Amino acid sequence: MDYNLLALGISLLALVFAAFLAKWVLRQPQGSSSLQEVSNIIKQGASAFLKRQYRTIGFIGMILALLLFFVYGFSGKWDQGWQTALAFVFGAASSAIAGIVAMSMSVRSNVRAAAAAEDGLPGALKVALRGGAVSGIIIVSMSLLGISLLFLFYSLLGYDFIKIPSLIVGYGFGASLVALFAQLGGGIFTKAADVGADLVGKIEAGIPEDDPRNPAVIADLVGDNVGDCAGRGADIFESTAAENIGAMILGVALYPVFGIKGIMFPLVLRAFGLIATIIGIYSAKSKEGDNPMKSLNKGYWVTSILAAIAFYFVTDIMLGNLWFFWAGIVGIVNSIAFVYITQYYTESRFRPVREIATASQTGHATNIISGFAVGLESTGLTVVGISASLLLSYWFGSQSGVPTGGLYGTAVATMGMLATAAYVLAMDVFGPITDNAGGIAEMSNAPEKIRKTTDKLDAVGNTTKALTKGYAIGSAALAAFLLFSAYLEEVHISIVDLAKVKVFVGALIGAMLVFLFSSLAIRAVGKAAYYIINDVRAQFKEKPGIMSGSEKPDYARAVDITTRGALKEMILPGILAVTVPILVGIFLRAEAEAGFLMVGTITGILMATMMNNGGGAWDNAKKYIEEGHLGGKKSATHAAAVTGDTVGDPFKDTAGPSLHVLIKLLSTLTLALALLFI
Amino acid sequence: MDYNLLALGISLLALVFAAFLAKWVLRQPQGSSSLQEVSNIIKQGASAFLKRQYRTIGFIGMILALLLFFVYGFSGKWDQGWQTALAFVFGAASSAIAGIVAMSMSVRSNVRAAAAAEDGLPGALKVALRGGAVSGIIIVSMSLLGISLLFLFYSLLGYDFIKIPSLIVGYGFGASLVALFAQLGGGIFTKAADVGADLVGKIEAGIPEDDPRNPAVIADLVGDNVGDCAGRGADIFESTAAENIGAMILGVALYPVFGIKGIMFPLVLRAFGLIATIIGIYSAKSKEGDNPMKSLNKGYWVTSILAAIAFYFVTDIMLGNLWFFWAGIVGIVNSIAFVYITQYYTESRFRPVREIATASQTGHATNIISGFAVGLESTGLTVVGISASLLLSYWFGSQSGVPTGGLYGTAVATMGMLATAAYVLAMDVFGPITDNAGGIAEMSNAPEKIRKTTDKLDAVGNTTKALTKGYAIGSAALAAFLLFSAYLEEVHISIVDLAKVKVFVGALIGAMLVFLFSSLAIRAVGKAAYYIINDVRAQFKEKPGIMSGSEKPDYARAVDITTRGALKEMILPGILAVTVPILVGIFLRAEAEAGFLMVGTITGILMATMMNNGGGAWDNAKKYIEEGHLGGKKSATHAAAVTGDTVGDPFKDTAGPSLHVLIKLLSTLTLALALLFI
Repeated sequence: MDYNLLALGISLLALVFAAFLAKWVLRQPQGSSSLQEVSNIIKQGASAFLKRQYRTIGFIGMILALLLFFVYGFSGKWDQGWQTALAFVFGAASSAIAGIVAMSMSVRSNVRAAAAAEDGLPGALKVALRGGAVSGIIIVSMSLLGISLLFLFYSLLGYDFIKIPSLIVGYGFGASLVALFAQLGGGIFTKAADVGADLVGKIEAGIPEDDPRNPAVIADLVGDNVGDCAGRGADIFESTAAENIGAMILGVALYPVFGIKGIMFPLVLRAFGLIATIIGIYSAKSKEGDNPMKSLNKGYWVTSILAAIAFYFVTDIMLGNLWFFWAGIVGIVNSIAFVYITQYYTESRFRPVREIATASQTGHATNIISGFAVGLESTGLTVVGISASLLLSYWFGSQSGVPTGGLYGTAVATMGMLATAAYVLAMDVFGPITDNAGGIAEMSNAPEKIRKTTDKLDAVGNTTKALTKGYAIGSAALAAFLLFSAYLEEVHISIVDLAKVKVFVGALIGAMLVFLFSSLAIRAVGKAAYYIINDVRAQFKEKPGIMSGSEKPDYARAVDITTRGALKEMILPGILAVTVPILVGIFLRAEAEAGFLMVGTITGILMATMMNNGGGAWDNAKKYIEEGHLGGKKSATHAAAVTGDTVGDPFKDTAGPSLHVLIKLLSTLTLALALLFI
Repeated sequence: MDYNLLALGISLLALVFAAFLAKWVLRQPQGSSSLQEVSNIIKQGASAFLKRQYRTIGFIGMILALLLFFVYGFSGKWDQGWQTALAFVFGAASSAIAGIVAMSMSVRSNVRAAAAAEDGLPGALKVALRGGAVSGIIIVSMSLLGISLLFLFYSLLGYDFIKIPSLIVGYGFGASLVALFAQLGGGIFTKAADVGADLVGKIEAGIPEDDPRNPAVIADLVGDNVGDCAGRGADIFESTAAENIGAMILGVALYPVFGIKGIMFPLVLRAFGLIATIIGIYSAKSKEGDNPMKSLNKGYWVTSILAAIAFYFVTDIMLGNLWFFWAGIVGIVNSIAFVYITQYYTESRFRPVREIATASQTGHATNIISGFAVGLESTGLTVVGISASLLLSYWFGSQSGVPTGGLYGTAVATMGMLATAAYVLAMDVFGPITDNAGGIAEMSNAPEKIRKTTDKLDAVGNTTKALTKGYAIGSAALAAFLLFSAYLEEVHISIVDLAKVKVFVGALIGAMLVFLFSSLAIRAVGKAAYYIINDVRAQFKEKPGIMSGSEKPDYARAVDITTRGALKEMILPGILAVTVPILVGIFLRAEAEAGFLMVGTITGILMATMMNNGGGAWDNAKKYIEEGHLGGKKSATHAAAVTGDTVGDPFKDTAGPSLHVLIKLLSTLTLALALLFI
């Protein structure tokens, strides 16, 4: 119990630290009034989107909570009913609050980063990273806090320690549900606005990107926040929550060996990961002229090493078995390996992106074929990494001499991988902040100097965003195996026999769900884009003075219309993701559901990897050409590369990230509803 | 044993019938000398390709045969070694012979179909369908003959009946190996030639499709034969061979119930399917003015109904249990359902193709996104169909009261689905014959009337090709489950526990292999296309008179260069497909190999479905626009649709069909090498 209070205390301390950091960011100057004006419009648009989005999610969430309550209730399990529903609502609410706080921080950091850019890069980097760190720390510590509080609550009610983890599985499901809709809605919004702004602005009206005359331009900037920031935040919130709960359930299975310490182990580790992140943030400083990526990397290494050291002591003290420390190291190394794999496939220094650029010379079709081939290929190293991590950490765990220690080894590897989650999230949120800073500078006609700095930061932000996606998919893959095991514990099955026809059919449907969900997610972007395209065209007609600069476009209207479109289009894929697993579980029962879950997860990992890396590679192939290679901007080669970039957008920013969340939703949903499928 | 002689006799009779039909086709007039001239060049190109391709395949095959022999031998199983190697070589050789005979028939039917077109559609249809039927019947009956002969051979050597099926598993592996390389090489050749001819001809030189001045045009026509005809033929040869063997192994497990009849059941059924096909071919006649698709459909229905009737009697007599008849009906209905699903997703009458056409109005990128979404979506109904068939046939089988009858039910469903294989193959080969007939007419400046008729036939051929792919994937999916079970019998495992970390890793690698293989297959097309593009450019330079018509291009050189390119590029994906399963089996052992096999199969089914249907839909969206919709030919919308069509080409004609073969190769390979993995 002391360990729970320790985790609770550290998570509260981390929140205090985040508040302190936020105060520092908010104290920074906001720059000229024209900067502030643009920033305010973005802020309003983003909060309008969030308000409406969370209303929709809240509505769906309430229905699901009631369903959970009554479905369990009518099967005579009223206790299980209120417990699951309570944890579900609490998880959903925590995730929503974390998302809202993190995003409101991000839309306040952007203008300050732009303002700081006037004094050069180091200052701007500091503001952007600290702004991102506030989000990262809040999200990870709230996820930890929620679980600790639930644990405290049930132990005060007098429940047995080893029963509690099963009572709070609804928390992960609630977080997943919010994450699914946050990522889907945000992802659809951001790409619909992006595609819409480009198609009408650049192509039809012939005005440059981020031009203030384009009514869709604010929607585009709002999109960066709601997609990359709020969406990914909810994603990582869910990851850490689900992983904590799953590991605790495995800890229960090991209660005879480790006692309560085995259950609390993941929470304590996460808490020390937060401390490592805080120190890492402070060590990421840069000097004028430095490559900003270097200082971010330095912070990451500091965080990783500190996390590894903490890992050593926590493992030694709590488990008294250092084999698990090695399993944790496997996870940390895996997270670093994923960073390099992602870089190889998405940076223009390497073969894959160059290949796409070369293929663009023979036209649109060869660009697409080549990018698709790169995306598919990138699954190879990814799977090798995941497989090696699983096998190795299993082996280390088996050496421990603990019964089912192998399985626990893979769980510890996941904890290792997620130890640096808050830092990675900080780097990720850094992306939309710098992206927005650049957009704000562009729109307010800020001096050349500011724009040069923000451009540099923006390029770094693109890289960090790609890396986070690789990290998210890697951790989702490791966490998945742990969550499967937790599910099997819950349904009291120890075997998932794929040779049974029902299980095989479940597996087939699981893989199909990934394909169908991707189809709907991609298509949703196209549909939502039509809303904004039509509105921009209408605005140009209604206000002929926009192009000459004598009239101002109605940015808010464009945001509002895109919001409605995105939220409408997120419903169908979201509902599909929730209902299919329930139906499979009810009709084909628990073992088939496990097959569904596992093969759905495998397919999801590969599809998401393909889409993230393919999309990133297309994007950077275009940028490579824009740097002046192979004919440069405005060449036919460039036109072909733009096609690839546009195709890649919904891949890497809508479907791919939504698939990460889908994978985890499948796990948390089956965990929360396990009793229905037995 | 009498049953084996029955199957052997019917397959020999079917071959005699095929010879008789071939004679009829060859008796038909070959038309004008200019028609014949073009046809001869195609014939030469195709046989040059085949010769070189089979030399490469033969080389790889010999190495594998030796490997099989020695690997088994050095593990002390010399008997198993020579048996497996012998069956392997026999299977590979039979498949190669069937492919060569079928293709040499196809390249002789094309010019005759073109000549017959002068007298109107019914005659041309008859020639083309009968030409296709020769291939279809030869391929299916040779596959049956080979197995019957092997069975006879071992029974004459005095082996116990119930041991023999395990001794001939190498036959399926040999057939798969040939099919893999035939489909890969053919698929790469056909699309490299197609893309190459289009890029240099249409885009750079500005001459229409099938223009005799384009040096790549003959390669394009050769490609139709080697890809669609020889490739698909090897594919179906393998399907029927693998399914026969797998079902016989399951029959061995049921020996206590059905005796030898259970083992011979699949062979006898296949034999009656051949008879049904022969009658079906004769009933597919058309009158002038009829829709030719109608008469092909009529023949298909006749074949299906006759097959169902034969099924009833054979089941009743041999198994004495009519529950299995119903399981067989499930398979027949499933094959019809697949025809309709494919039609829905690839014909311009329906929503999906229309959606792609509409999306082409906003450019290349939206065309691609939309086509991709359609391909992904099409996996939904496909999986519902497969799942329903598996569950239903399992249920029927369980009702039979026979132990493990459910499993045998799914096997019988597969037999039902494959009962019409020869007819479907006839329709498929009909495709390249009519396609070639059109090309020959175009190139030899044949009268308008001929070209109109061949155009109509060509359109029908496109549909039949798409349908066959749907059929091939559906039957591969059903057959897969049966082959898994056969594998499990061979390695004496009854459970494939996905919750074990090794099995899960095997599964992960299986899914990854599909992604990686697809990547390599797609990329190979692009690489091979460069060979022909460079050659065409060189020919235009070397012979400036080509464009004015005063010089003739060197068609043979273009064919030769494409051949080298395609064969070189098929090696890497081919080797990958063979080595990965062996490595997984050796390092992770039999149960993980089963997980690898099953999840690889699931992913392969989905990926192939996505690629086949996406590619078909893109193709027909372009054709829909060319018919004058949405701006028609030469509009920007059309240009966008052409991009989709070009992207779809390697999807639907290289990677997709190669994936069918890959799936089955995985099964036959694991079966043949099962003893190594225990």
